[in-house]
Amino acid sequence: MEKDTANSNINPVRILVVGTGAVGGFYGSRLARAGAEVTTVNRSDYKEVANNGIFIKSIDGDYHFKPHAVLKNVADYQGYPDYILIALKSLPQLDIGKIIAPAVGPKTKIFLLQNGINIEENISVKFLDNEIISGLAFICVNRIKPGHISHLCYGKLVVGAYPDGNSAAVDKLANLFNESKTPCRISESIITERWRKLIWNAPFNPISVLTQTDTQQIMAKPETVTLVRTIMEEVYAVAASVGHILPTDVIDKNIADTEIMRPYKTSMLLDFEENRPMEVEAILGNIVRTAKKSGIMVPHLQTMYELLTLLVRGGGQNQK
Amino acid sequence: MEKDTANSNINPVRILVVGTGAVGGFYGSRLARAGAEVTTVNRSDYKEVANNGIFIKSIDGDYHFKPHAVLKNVADYQGYPDYILIALKSLPQLDIGKIIAPAVGPKTKIFLLQNGINIEENISVKFLDNEIISGLAFICVNRIKPGHISHLCYGKLVVGAYPDGNSAAVDKLANLFNESKTPCRISESIITERWRKLIWNAPFNPISVLTQTDTQQIMAKPETVTLVRTIMEEVYAVAASVGHILPTDVIDKNIADTEIMRPYKTSMLLDFEENRPMEVEAILGNIVRTAKKSGIMVPHLQTMYELLTLLVRGGGQNQK
Repeated sequence: MEKDTANSNINPVRILVVGTGAVGGFYGSRLARAGAEVTTVNRSDYKEVANNGIFIKSIDGDYHFKPHAVLKNVADYQGYPDYILIALKSLPQLDIGKIIAPAVGPKTKIFLLQNGINIEENISVKFLDNEIISGLAFICVNRIKPGHISHLCYGKLVVGAYPDGNSAAVDKLANLFNESKTPCRISESIITERWRKLIWNAPFNPISVLTQTDTQQIMAKPETVTLVRTIMEEVYAVAASVGHILPTDVIDKNIADTEIMRPYKTSMLLDFEENRPMEVEAILGNIVRTAKKSGIMVPHLQTMYELLTLLVRGGGQNQK
Repeated sequence: MEKDTANSNINPVRILVVGTGAVGGFYGSRLARAGAEVTTVNRSDYKEVANNGIFIKSIDGDYHFKPHAVLKNVADYQGYPDYILIALKSLPQLDIGKIIAPAVGPKTKIFLLQNGINIEENISVKFLDNEIISGLAFICVNRIKPGHISHLCYGKLVVGAYPDGNSAAVDKLANLFNESKTPCRISESIITERWRKLIWNAPFNPISVLTQTDTQQIMAKPETVTLVRTIMEEVYAVAASVGHILPTDVIDKNIADTEIMRPYKTSMLLDFEENRPMEVEAILGNIVRTAKKSGIMVPHLQTMYELLTLLVRGGGQNQK
């Protein structure tokens, strides 16, 4: 454990990053740049990060991030942090409540920076007296080797109080990000924002895995664009059925944005190629289940969900 | 070119097999066993088959098949055969009419032993005066190396006059097969039989490719069985919309039969694994187009069709 003297100030905001992969490492580094006291939990690359910190090769300029402390386990945290930033993947087999419990104090805010929908409820029920902040990252960022992160494009955040509204803690967090030149917008309807992000993730992630293609290949075939659009319409309908009415042009806009985007491999395809667990439930399973509850037919989502779960289970992917 | 004296008789039925892969080689060998004069067209394994014939390792007992003649090209056929047995794959890029034209005489019957639906029309239009016979093979058979075929299970045929009814030529063909202990049933509604076979092929072939699983893995997951059933219901509805009413228990029966089947890799998955062209249009594309004409929604078939065509095009399969 080493002090990051350069960034320390009198009463720094204390932050614990749980899940210090590409996303956790990147946004943790940004909070540290704004003066927060950022501690990280590292497992596979503990030794590398404890010794040398994290090197970030970024389109905004390369830099180095030396956490206030690097821990092997959440339980090693001294006292309680002001915020726990959770950047673990959304996977059913990860009991995040159990993982973070040792560091959750009476005033600790829990900041879930994860993909998918319906990811907050389990945490919110377990920590009834703690404020939950929900956030979405719009970024292309990869861990290229232990202690090394590559930030390729975008970077902005959308955060909000869970289940909705704003709070002083959200303001404070957003300010830290914005101070470190990491655009962070506050939304008073963060769940609606999750559905909005899902409009893109729900078609592109599964299609990319099932067909092993990047976004450019997907967009090059008009029939596939029609499939993408149809899936987006299903997500739109399910979101509306649970009270999240998205802008009417959200689908056209997502299609248009993807058409001009550089060829991009989805995070799910990268996970698939590396035999890492994929966020199938957070990105597809939870929509399909919500659709069922709402009595909405989602045959295209359903087909892709069943294919993906069979792919994982059947052996097409040998998960680490 | 060598005479197969053992099987020759005074006026043998003359048969030309075009597409002497596993299916063509196997059924050609059965016709030869019944006394027909069977000539084969071989491309990739011409030398091997011309020199040594075809060795068939079969659950019914191993045997050797020496064609009456082995040709490099259809145009090398002497005179015209009574039947041309076409066992080529159903692929849009193969112009079968053009391939067989040199050997089609005024009395030649054209026997299409292929998968899928809507595969006869192009041929029937090109050879208006020739009788078209349509057939389906229910068999597990693979070419394991040049000149060597492995017959693993089943083997029965269903044949009929196209577009429906029976004929003397169909009877004669069926008799040859039955004489060589190759069960061959005559159907007066062969197109209905094609739809019936598609009830199985339409779900299992694409699912197996997209998820790289065998039938046992597919059947082991109840949600996938539900997907299979839903796809079968879509095929059933499309068949009905064009006048082919299948038995009401056809879906239950297909599910039940697959449950007790030995783990089986579909032909499409084998093609995918070997980077060979897949019969995507004959097995999926033609149903989707028929559904569209009939105004029937087939979202599950549509999703799989778009995924498969993207997989082929996008680079997930590098076709030879």
